[in-house]
Amino acid sequence: MHINTMQKFVNDPDTFVDDSIIGFVKCYPDVVAHTACSRTLKYIAAPVAGKVGLVAGGGWGHDPAFMGYLGKNMLDAVAIGETFTPPTIESFYEAFRSADAGLGVLCLCGNYAKDIANATVAIKQAAEEKIDVRMVVINDDVAFPDISERRGMTGEVFLWKVAGAAAANGYDLNRMESVAKRAVSDIRSIGVGLASCIIPETGRPNYLIENGTMEIGVGHHGLFSKDTCKLRSANASADIMLSEILNDMPLDATSRVAVMISGLGNTMLSELNILFGRVYDVLTAKGVCISRSMVGNYFTSLDMMGATLTIMRLDDETLQLLNYPGYAVSFSHFYQ
Amino acid sequence: MHINTMQKFVNDPDTFVDDSIIGFVKCYPDVVAHTACSRTLKYIAAPVAGKVGLVAGGGWGHDPAFMGYLGKNMLDAVAIGETFTPPTIESFYEAFRSADAGLGVLCLCGNYAKDIANATVAIKQAAEEKIDVRMVVINDDVAFPDISERRGMTGEVFLWKVAGAAAANGYDLNRMESVAKRAVSDIRSIGVGLASCIIPETGRPNYLIENGTMEIGVGHHGLFSKDTCKLRSANASADIMLSEILNDMPLDATSRVAVMISGLGNTMLSELNILFGRVYDVLTAKGVCISRSMVGNYFTSLDMMGATLTIMRLDDETLQLLNYPGYAVSFSHFYQ
Repeated sequence: MHINTMQKFVNDPDTFVDDSIIGFVKCYPDVVAHTACSRTLKYIAAPVAGKVGLVAGGGWGHDPAFMGYLGKNMLDAVAIGETFTPPTIESFYEAFRSADAGLGVLCLCGNYAKDIANATVAIKQAAEEKIDVRMVVINDDVAFPDISERRGMTGEVFLWKVAGAAAANGYDLNRMESVAKRAVSDIRSIGVGLASCIIPETGRPNYLIENGTMEIGVGHHGLFSKDTCKLRSANASADIMLSEILNDMPLDATSRVAVMISGLGNTMLSELNILFGRVYDVLTAKGVCISRSMVGNYFTSLDMMGATLTIMRLDDETLQLLNYPGYAVSFSHFYQ
Repeated sequence: MHINTMQKFVNDPDTFVDDSIIGFVKCYPDVVAHTACSRTLKYIAAPVAGKVGLVAGGGWGHDPAFMGYLGKNMLDAVAIGETFTPPTIESFYEAFRSADAGLGVLCLCGNYAKDIANATVAIKQAAEEKIDVRMVVINDDVAFPDISERRGMTGEVFLWKVAGAAAANGYDLNRMESVAKRAVSDIRSIGVGLASCIIPETGRPNYLIENGTMEIGVGHHGLFSKDTCKLRSANASADIMLSEILNDMPLDATSRVAVMISGLGNTMLSELNILFGRVYDVLTAKGVCISRSMVGNYFTSLDMMGATLTIMRLDDETLQLLNYPGYAVSFSHFYQ
């Protein structure tokens, strides 16, 4: 139970999403821009001549996803739905139009049936205008035992980065599709929830997590979890997350990986750093080489408490793409 | 009252700060490094030959401050205290030693008596080793009516960026000190608190904010606020913050400014974007030119709900310094 229900900065709950999008564009006018559709934003320089366009999309509530990843060598356009609701057909269609520089568009979607359905219709509409759009679906959440049921999760951030770099490096649409599919096959995520989120439009949580417990395998919408257990220590929580991933994607001393710990909203960076420290210790003890790591709030679930662990298995090509310079509001390349 | 007290990832509350620091360094080994003191971290390349060293420091609980701002053309070393507690003399001293490349060190401190006292002793110790350290104190929080009582707040982030760029541009220590003092005179901040934070070491809040109310002028430690009122809309909250700053630092159509909205911890980016949108509208209606703007969790107060507004008045020199490339984990230059 939340006492602090709606201790939030809101004008009108019905315009919460639009108000936030408008504020974001006002803040970053040299990075992002509005399009003909209010729920589609684009990188200011899109469409970028000479490269395949890159589009992602999904429901609201995952700040800084999706709009924080628009930028140079990153996403060209994003389609934005209502809170935890798929983007409309129109929003996807406008994203494809905004991203296409004549070389086609790759659309990256999480594995949610309604998102895919809307994107599929928009792809057909775009085809009528001779815009070639391919879709690659990501299903990194290992909480679901059946692989076809697995949802897209924080791993989308790695996928966007890799695909953005591929486009910037002149990959054609076929090669983009191919490297994105390989990346998807190499990314796994798992979430742990410590407190539910409040839906700003209703002022209420959409489910409950009892105090003193944690939800293993909680989804980004909180609608499914694999198991409920007593709240564990940071190290034990990290161990649980890591073993869920390693059971699905074994790693050994020949493996190179990228690791991301993302907060779900209301979990402090300090805590996320502690989780990372444990993941680092366990992986390096196994001889796994961590080539890139990130801790932050990269893909949230409104104000949920909890964290996700994402691991991406790397080969020479995907490592190079992951480390290629990319500039977005919420994902910058700080290496020299 | 918080129900979700300590729904947190913690191993041992007594080692919470150390565990987090260790995890952070494991995550970013090509950006930051440990030093001889466990509560002092340095930029991996520090001391950087040919430039003045730059040090900041303060208590824990403000993630990503201070360690997230170590990096190229940013901070060279940071001194880290316990939660809401000043860094030790030893920690400051080690930061000075880690940052000094023979051209001296500028130490940037918030206006907290004990932080300043410890830094002052460390400066004397450093002088005995022929390390010339100057201190510039920032007091951007306008909630305090008496300017001598004003505390350092989110504005420190702008100060670090400006001073980091000045050092990178070869400013000597005198010129560094001068530009930092001018920056301080041009920066104002104000906070609004919507829910108190939980101290991880005790599992309890250090003060209370009643549901349905907000604290105008809440400090980063929550220990002082100027006024309590009923919870307002986002726009009304932004208006209150803006008028507190404009009353102290009038702006008009000749003014150029940088604007930052920072979350205090558990306030969503979505909300912060809405606050920014309002600040943008009011300032631009007055003819004020917003040359740079940022929305994010740049300087938090553990898991407090709320936000801070920071405005920095710019001249040609400080604008150029603010826009100069700088690379840290939590402050990257994403402009092209």
